[in-house]
Amino acid sequence: QIPKFFEELHPADIAEIINHAPSSTHNKLFDLIDDSIKPDVLAELDDQTEADILEELTDEEISDIIEEMAPDDAADVLGELEGKRSEEILELMENEESEEVRELLQYDEDTAGGIMTTDFVAASATMTAEEAIDYIGSLEFDEPLYYLYVVDAEGRMTGWIQLWELLKQANRNLSLEKMAEKETISVHTDTDQEEVARLASKYDLSSLPVLDRQNKLVGRITVDDIMDVMEEEASEDIFKLAGSNDSELEDTSPLQACKARLPWLLITLGTGFVSSLILKSFMNHITMSEVVALSFFVPIIMAMGGNTGIQSSTLIIRGIALGASHSRKVAKIITHEIIAGASMGLICGATIGLWARFMIAHNGPSAIAPSFLAVTVGIALFSAMAFAAVFGALVPVLLNRFKIDPAVASGPFVTASNDIFALLIYYGVTLAMISAVHAVV
Amino acid sequence: QIPKFFEELHPADIAEIINHAPSSTHNKLFDLIDDSIKPDVLAELDDQTEADILEELTDEEISDIIEEMAPDDAADVLGELEGKRSEEILELMENEESEEVRELLQYDEDTAGGIMTTDFVAASATMTAEEAIDYIGSLEFDEPLYYLYVVDAEGRMTGWIQLWELLKQANRNLSLEKMAEKETISVHTDTDQEEVARLASKYDLSSLPVLDRQNKLVGRITVDDIMDVMEEEASEDIFKLAGSNDSELEDTSPLQACKARLPWLLITLGTGFVSSLILKSFMNHITMSEVVALSFFVPIIMAMGGNTGIQSSTLIIRGIALGASHSRKVAKIITHEIIAGASMGLICGATIGLWARFMIAHNGPSAIAPSFLAVTVGIALFSAMAFAAVFGALVPVLLNRFKIDPAVASGPFVTASNDIFALLIYYGVTLAMISAVHAVV
Ligand SMILES: [Mg+2]
Ligand SMILES: [Mg+2]
Ligand SMILES: [Mg+2]
Ligand SMILES: [Mg+2]
Ligand SMILES: [Mg+2]
Ligand SMILES: [Mg+2]
Ligand SMILES: [Mg+2]
Ligand SMILES: [Mg+2]
Ligand SMILES: [Mg+2]
Ligand SMILES: [Mg+2]
Ligand SMILES: [Mg+2]
Ligand SMILES: [Mg+2]
Ligand SMILES: [Mg+2]
Repeated sequence: QIPKFFEELHPADIAEIINHAPSSTHNKLFDLIDDSIKPDVLAELDDQTEADILEELTDEEISDIIEEMAPDDAADVLGELEGKRSEEILELMENEESEEVRELLQYDEDTAGGIMTTDFVAASATMTAEEAIDYIGSLEFDEPLYYLYVVDAEGRMTGWIQLWELLKQANRNLSLEKMAEKETISVHTDTDQEEVARLASKYDLSSLPVLDRQNKLVGRITVDDIMDVMEEEASEDIFKLAGSNDSELEDTSPLQACKARLPWLLITLGTGFVSSLILKSFMNHITMSEVVALSFFVPIIMAMGGNTGIQSSTLIIRGIALGASHSRKVAKIITHEIIAGASMGLICGATIGLWARFMIAHNGPSAIAPSFLAVTVGIALFSAMAFAAVFGALVPVLLNRFKIDPAVASGPFVTASNDIFALLIYYGVTLAMISAVHAVV
Repeated sequence: QIPKFFEELHPADIAEIINHAPSSTHNKLFDLIDDSIKPDVLAELDDQTEADILEELTDEEISDIIEEMAPDDAADVLGELEGKRSEEILELMENEESEEVRELLQYDEDTAGGIMTTDFVAASATMTAEEAIDYIGSLEFDEPLYYLYVVDAEGRMTGWIQLWELLKQANRNLSLEKMAEKETISVHTDTDQEEVARLASKYDLSSLPVLDRQNKLVGRITVDDIMDVMEEEASEDIFKLAGSNDSELEDTSPLQACKARLPWLLITLGTGFVSSLILKSFMNHITMSEVVALSFFVPIIMAMGGNTGIQSSTLIIRGIALGASHSRKVAKIITHEIIAGASMGLICGATIGLWARFMIAHNGPSAIAPSFLAVTVGIALFSAMAFAAVFGALVPVLLNRFKIDPAVASGPFVTASNDIFALLIYYGVTLAMISAVHAVV
């Protein structure tokens, strides 16, 4: 019954069912699948599910399955195995297949080389449309074909023809030379996959040719893999901003969730130790009733500083990810954030000042006049917000300058730093104003 | 000189240059572009830049430009104008063009109808491959063609043929009926664009057919527009999580940035008022030196509760966006987050307890024993984290149940609520423990 049911499903649906099923059933479910679609299902599984299944299969079984996969997917599967086992499986494969996969395995998985496939069509510029169509007809493809690449004698790409234009060409004797679009867009094997996705999206391409260091055409990247990159990179950035990582998207155990989340929480905890020390040392400079009155507003100052910082970091990080902020000048960003942060700080600072005046009036005896304290709280919030806006924007900009992925470090770093800075600014402003008053008196 | 320079650039690059140039130069730059590529450039401009330019163009100029655009892009441009002006421009267009655009304008811009184009090829199942190729050759396209859709007499899709497979078909007399893939994937005009992107990515499609309510084929969605949707939806979610919105990605003024960011900051401020009231009312129940000692740990409790909540919200929101968490059971999520939150809370609670013991020992006389206070702080942090993990996951799950976009409401709501709950838990636990000790004594 179950095999019948599976037979009518798309491999992507079968993969989704297995991904969501309990770990212990992964192998049984995979066994139920008809051999002919095992390659398609395997290509769509989560890394964790894939690992579960590969562990139980013999090397022979794996080599039979991945021989039928597109070379890029086969390389992805072997790349997840340890080197020795991967080598043993490659030995079992037919020569032609294993060579292509070996070639792909040499590239870093986050680069154009790591997501390209060797399954493309290159033709000489002297061919006619008719010959090209016959040539394509004689080839086998693992995946949809969108472009015919025109290459010179050295294998360097000199232009491309979209397949639908080849099909529409009425004059079948026209040479590819005449039909080819010369202004093409290509990437190198070591281009970052994020850059690949940006180019495909910007220039509306359904496939991208990949060149090696000698500018020889060595592969193509298909749009289905580009969509996967876009999802993966967006997930990565979202999780990093929240101080976790996208391994959580796969059905993880609570323990694995802790492993992904704890690092940032421990940094936050460490930062919290510093805040507690700041709060304590501040006690030595003012009276206890002042400490108590000021402590009412510590949560507001910290929450406002933190949120302002996250907002400006997010703007810059997403802008960089989409390639929009590449060229933005640091000076312009600082100016923008100073104005935005100061304006928002002014509105929020004035509001909290009024609120503080209302709160402290009912607070019994204090060495400082309630109105004075209210003004102090307002100025402190204003300063903390203006600072957080600039700081939150600057950190990702600077990280990007030094070629560090801004998403990875910004979220936790900006939030933790802002907690400390907000407190320091709050008490710094308060102390400065109190001692200024004392000096006047 | 400048027009020459522009001539050699891709329309997407010209659009990027104009988007990043100061507002005041937008019209001048657009004027410099050769008329033949104005349609392509206009299709790629930011909404704000587009509005700047459309404002200065006459209705005749606009109608000339959008007549040359793909119908979906033309509809996007007109959709940005007010109804009356859009109608005037449609009147100036050639009948055939304006009808297609009018048809597309009726759909909501976030649906399949809003992103589809009317530029597709449908052929009868009785046609041969040869006839289909000739038929395609006789048509004009605005955009690359990937599929030939096979339809019945009523215009309902019965299958599709990928263009590359049509081209590879050696037997040119074979009927489309025989060649067509019957298990196709399609969407309806009112399908949400996020669902469209999910389907394209899941089933590796470079184009998706769109059906109306009578299941008649009315359009297709091309992969370049799907990539735009993926970027747009990811940006929307990232900015919502940070309490801002993706309008900020366009080069906005600091004032517009304030407009996007202030709403959440004001909610945070309001939440902060509540925290200050909680802190103040708490003062009435314990001694001032206890208040001071406990206040050292307020920042830690709040930061840890907030971050734990964001982490679990992010997991659920991204999971829902990618379609992975659709089927997850609420009970399973709660169990997962209780275990994860409690484990992390145990580790962090124990650590902060030790730290609190160290801090308070040096704190002079207090009515509560330092060790007792340290244990209290540890238990409070543990409770706050376990609560935040569950709450952060539950809010997006419930919003999704009630068909509210979880990304829009979760970020700000979860963070603000967690601030309040963390404080309440902190002081609730403390008071409960103090009164328990009093009761024993
Ligand atoms: Mg894969
Ligand atoms: Mg790979
Ligand atoms: Mg990357
Ligand atoms: Mg595009
Ligand atoms: Mg692939
Ligand atoms: Mg794939
Ligand atoms: Mg990235
Ligand atoms: Mg567009
Ligand atoms: Mg539209
Ligand atoms: Mg949406
Ligand atoms: Mg896919
Ligand atoms: Mg389009
Ligand atoms: Mg959305």
